[in-house]
Amino acid sequence: MKVITTINEMQNEILKHKELGMSIGFVPTMGFLHEGHLTLISKARKENDVVVVSIFVNPLQFGPKEDFSTYPRDFDRDRALAEGEKVDYLFYPSVEEMYPREPSVKVMVQERTDVLCGKSRPGHFDGVATVITKLFHIMMPTRAYFGKKDAQQVAVIDGLISDFNFPVHLIPVDIVREKDGLAKSSRNVNLLAEEREQAPIIYKSLQTAKKAIDDGEINPAVLTTMIKELITSESNGEIDYVEILSYPFLKPLEKIEGSLIIAVAVKFSKVRLIDNIMIQID
Amino acid sequence: MKVITTINEMQNEILKHKELGMSIGFVPTMGFLHEGHLTLISKARKENDVVVVSIFVNPLQFGPKEDFSTYPRDFDRDRALAEGEKVDYLFYPSVEEMYPREPSVKVMVQERTDVLCGKSRPGHFDGVATVITKLFHIMMPTRAYFGKKDAQQVAVIDGLISDFNFPVHLIPVDIVREKDGLAKSSRNVNLLAEEREQAPIIYKSLQTAKKAIDDGEINPAVLTTMIKELITSESNGEIDYVEILSYPFLKPLEKIEGSLIIAVAVKFSKVRLIDNIMIQID
Repeated sequence: MKVITTINEMQNEILKHKELGMSIGFVPTMGFLHEGHLTLISKARKENDVVVVSIFVNPLQFGPKEDFSTYPRDFDRDRALAEGEKVDYLFYPSVEEMYPREPSVKVMVQERTDVLCGKSRPGHFDGVATVITKLFHIMMPTRAYFGKKDAQQVAVIDGLISDFNFPVHLIPVDIVREKDGLAKSSRNVNLLAEEREQAPIIYKSLQTAKKAIDDGEINPAVLTTMIKELITSESNGEIDYVEILSYPFLKPLEKIEGSLIIAVAVKFSKVRLIDNIMIQID
Repeated sequence: MKVITTINEMQNEILKHKELGMSIGFVPTMGFLHEGHLTLISKARKENDVVVVSIFVNPLQFGPKEDFSTYPRDFDRDRALAEGEKVDYLFYPSVEEMYPREPSVKVMVQERTDVLCGKSRPGHFDGVATVITKLFHIMMPTRAYFGKKDAQQVAVIDGLISDFNFPVHLIPVDIVREKDGLAKSSRNVNLLAEEREQAPIIYKSLQTAKKAIDDGEINPAVLTTMIKELITSESNGEIDYVEILSYPFLKPLEKIEGSLIIAVAVKFSKVRLIDNIMIQID
């Protein structure tokens, strides 16, 4: 595995592979890799000739009151994990390398952002779309891998790729879960023991809603109430949101139809958990 | 020459050439081709294996009071001219093909736009940068050709390419001039006979300023006054602007140094002419 820190060297390496007609699989990350990332990387490894992972904590996507400076970083551990997954290139640029001066351009995301987590993070997805645009131009990937856990991010990247005609295939990867159904997350360790026992109700409530849909329920309001009541009655968690939206456009639904997402965010004492399921009604 | 109207077909054709390691030269236009365009195309033809010209009148870059619907169009003539220059692909998409729905993303240009023509055209360069981003993803050009006559457009595209790390070489092409120095433009035919005789003073005033710089003048204010006086005394034209700016950042200069542009816009009775020279002081 080669660690590369400059854009120029990375782009030149990629161009060499592209001219040989090789496929490039790309997994963008902010580092501090966990099992979710490794699932993306291992899928990229199976499907492409060359695998590139980037580690870059992107200041553009953090709000002024958010945790850019304290975001966890552990490059040596990440490098060992990436090497274990047989990654070919680890791209690890500095902030100065990625943003050497005030940029003259940025990507503005004007749809899909005023719902779910985007509501409370103005500008966050502009920062995500801008850095992904840069990384796509550096890596020129055939396929780019994103976890479905951040469903809104996948929806925004879907819009970025299709509306800007990027020659990139978006590969959304299923959520990895614990045996009891809780979506895996580095943050789960911050749950109190009691909360950890309660947390699987989030996914169970999503499955209950899915079963109600299978049984003919078509009213989104009935379903969101059902989910809220289940989570509130079986945990100390405080509901941040339960939303049912079209996917990937993330528009409110009058009734259950087409391609949709049910997404939930729940606050526990020290950690906020998110989860979702996607459903396709034919 | 192949005329292509869909993004999908165009992208697939280009990918075939890219996989063979062939270079792609791209000339984006809004059609109604004139000698300036043909100079770009002929340069692209000399320098690349494959030459693609796009013809697309981009609604995004026209203001609500601007002439999108009356912008001149003549596809049959353009096709013949492109064929004469041995173009390989003419990309000619509809507005619906380029913008099938309200786009979820756009490029915002936050620098280089509050001067020159950009001052009076808010949003214009966002529209230019957005469509060029799309076209670059469709054509994946090795080299993209832009005329220096639209110097601000070249500066904006320079920022777009470098700040978004597009793997594209920007090739700015020198202004083509009449024998008397007037920059060629489809709009010159709208000059009255008397104005046509006066118009070469624009370029002459730029050359006079350049000579003053060569002779040691370092005060931008002295130079802009010199240009304004020359144009006003020798023509009926009304000065829109005379600006001396750093290039490509387009920042005001305290003194003449480094890489810079002197740009002029002059209104005649039925037409507004622009011209510029770029100067490098070592």
